[in-house]
Amino acid sequence: MVLDSFDRIAVLGLGLIGGSIVQALARGGYRVTGYDPNPVEVAAARGTGYTVAGSAAGAVTGADLVVLAMPLPQLDGALASIAGALGPRTVITDVGTLKAPVLRAVRTRLPRARFVGGHPLAGTEQSGFLAGDPMLFRDAPWALVLEPDTDLPAWLSLAVLLCDLGAKPVPTTAAEQDAAIARVIGLPHMLAEALALAGLHGGELGLSLAAGSYTAGSRVARTRPELVTTWCDGNPALIDALDDAIGLLAASRDALAAGGSVRELAEAGHRARMEWENREFGPVDLAADPQALLQHGRDGGWITAVIEKDGPDLASLRLLGMRPVR
Amino acid sequence: MVLDSFDRIAVLGLGLIGGSIVQALARGGYRVTGYDPNPVEVAAARGTGYTVAGSAAGAVTGADLVVLAMPLPQLDGALASIAGALGPRTVITDVGTLKAPVLRAVRTRLPRARFVGGHPLAGTEQSGFLAGDPMLFRDAPWALVLEPDTDLPAWLSLAVLLCDLGAKPVPTTAAEQDAAIARVIGLPHMLAEALALAGLHGGELGLSLAAGSYTAGSRVARTRPELVTTWCDGNPALIDALDDAIGLLAASRDALAAGGSVRELAEAGHRARMEWENREFGPVDLAADPQALLQHGRDGGWITAVIEKDGPDLASLRLLGMRPVR
Repeated sequence: MVLDSFDRIAVLGLGLIGGSIVQALARGGYRVTGYDPNPVEVAAARGTGYTVAGSAAGAVTGADLVVLAMPLPQLDGALASIAGALGPRTVITDVGTLKAPVLRAVRTRLPRARFVGGHPLAGTEQSGFLAGDPMLFRDAPWALVLEPDTDLPAWLSLAVLLCDLGAKPVPTTAAEQDAAIARVIGLPHMLAEALALAGLHGGELGLSLAAGSYTAGSRVARTRPELVTTWCDGNPALIDALDDAIGLLAASRDALAAGGSVRELAEAGHRARMEWENREFGPVDLAADPQALLQHGRDGGWITAVIEKDGPDLASLRLLGMRPVR
Repeated sequence: MVLDSFDRIAVLGLGLIGGSIVQALARGGYRVTGYDPNPVEVAAARGTGYTVAGSAAGAVTGADLVVLAMPLPQLDGALASIAGALGPRTVITDVGTLKAPVLRAVRTRLPRARFVGGHPLAGTEQSGFLAGDPMLFRDAPWALVLEPDTDLPAWLSLAVLLCDLGAKPVPTTAAEQDAAIARVIGLPHMLAEALALAGLHGGELGLSLAAGSYTAGSRVARTRPELVTTWCDGNPALIDALDDAIGLLAASRDALAAGGSVRELAEAGHRARMEWENREFGPVDLAADPQALLQHGRDGGWITAVIEKDGPDLASLRLLGMRPVR
């Protein structure tokens, strides 16, 4: 078989995402060992019947897949602590929001590792292992980074695993995923923060009159600020996304100041939202070819299955996907 | 008794808001007659057992309260058509989002009318009489405009009626309510439109990765654009609100461009949202005095009851309210 089978998986970081991955993998029949430096998460995981190692190096020893699920500031230290315990064929992945910083850190610390960056588009406003949910990734997009130096069998093996968890693996480069994330995670958080604050600037009367649109628009300002900065800082594409949004708002502002209407933005925004909501998808056959896969991701597609036939190489694989149809 | 009792109420416009008012009033035991130029809404109201007149003038004849619940562009025509049918003591109110334009139209068309502008902060994404809900106004703020020339007994009588419907009457001037609305209705809609559009500008990949924050942030871009323009156009305070939001976003943009962090906005926005969510309220006694009532609204308060005792004038009234406590 050309693909890795991931008989032993280590998950480092047992918060909401790592904890959910442990629970989903265990439910899927995978042999999984967790680790977290926080004794609270360790106790929560052990107390609910999961295996937790005493150290990061202990968790990854003998593992054929390592999932890095710690906060970004702890990533570099974790890479250092596991470097000596990794096998030569061990596949490493992560779950961070921005893919370029992680790619840089791994290339520096573990230049020969079979690393594939990942980003599950799932989460809740809660945190911690006990908030974890083995169904969290069901139907969730999961960006899976395919760079020129990415090991393709490792990438495909991970795609199989993600499909097993019910997720939708989306092939993309680190730069393209970060540019997309700037617009659908960074920008919505910035707009929600600005709305929450500009609403408050209007005084108590406005806060008492605030109804559905203020509530919905500022909802993600409930997110802890240290997470928001992790998702935004150091992403150059967010500058472009902010410029785009500021330009749209400034045009409406100038129209109002000239006695005109916000109609142009209202109509274009409405059309954009409805177009997004009403997208329809159809099945497609794919080749195990990096350029074809990346184009599929660019077109809004994802992988639904990797079918392994008896054959010695990647050409014997059949990939199925879904993509938007017009 | 110093207050109007509203024995016969006419509601002009039988869409979602007008229809809900008709249904709430009927359930509250009020005698209510509706009117709508659209035969679909007339049939819906009659078919579910409500009284509908054959013309606007017919509906208001003999009414001691008229509720204008038609779209703003139809308001002026409606005022012209009912002018001759109003009694000398008839109280008129409306339900429009912006209060200054309505006030101007009424002062021009019906300069001697006992008019009190109103704005229920309630609604759904649906429309039409059949989408109406007699419970729509339960716990909903309802701005009730108190200008220097407002008839105070008419204002207080309406406050009693709104409390009867389960709503929270908020005393405010037209200018102050429009300034507040700019920040909690106009601005959230502009930001949602900009987000929907800037997300689309990122291409199909971003739309496939769009998750909770994009969904929540662009939700109100589902609103029909012609409604959004009605809520935004001609409101000078929206220019200030947009300037405020643009300034906050531009500061974050510049921080990112300088290699810095969005932390300042993330922290301030988070604090603002949590402060709004965690407001607590306590009871207060109020006098039937316009300045005291307006200050109460400015402080984030509303009316919960108007208690009428045996007495010849407003001084015999006892008003109860709720307001934020620190």
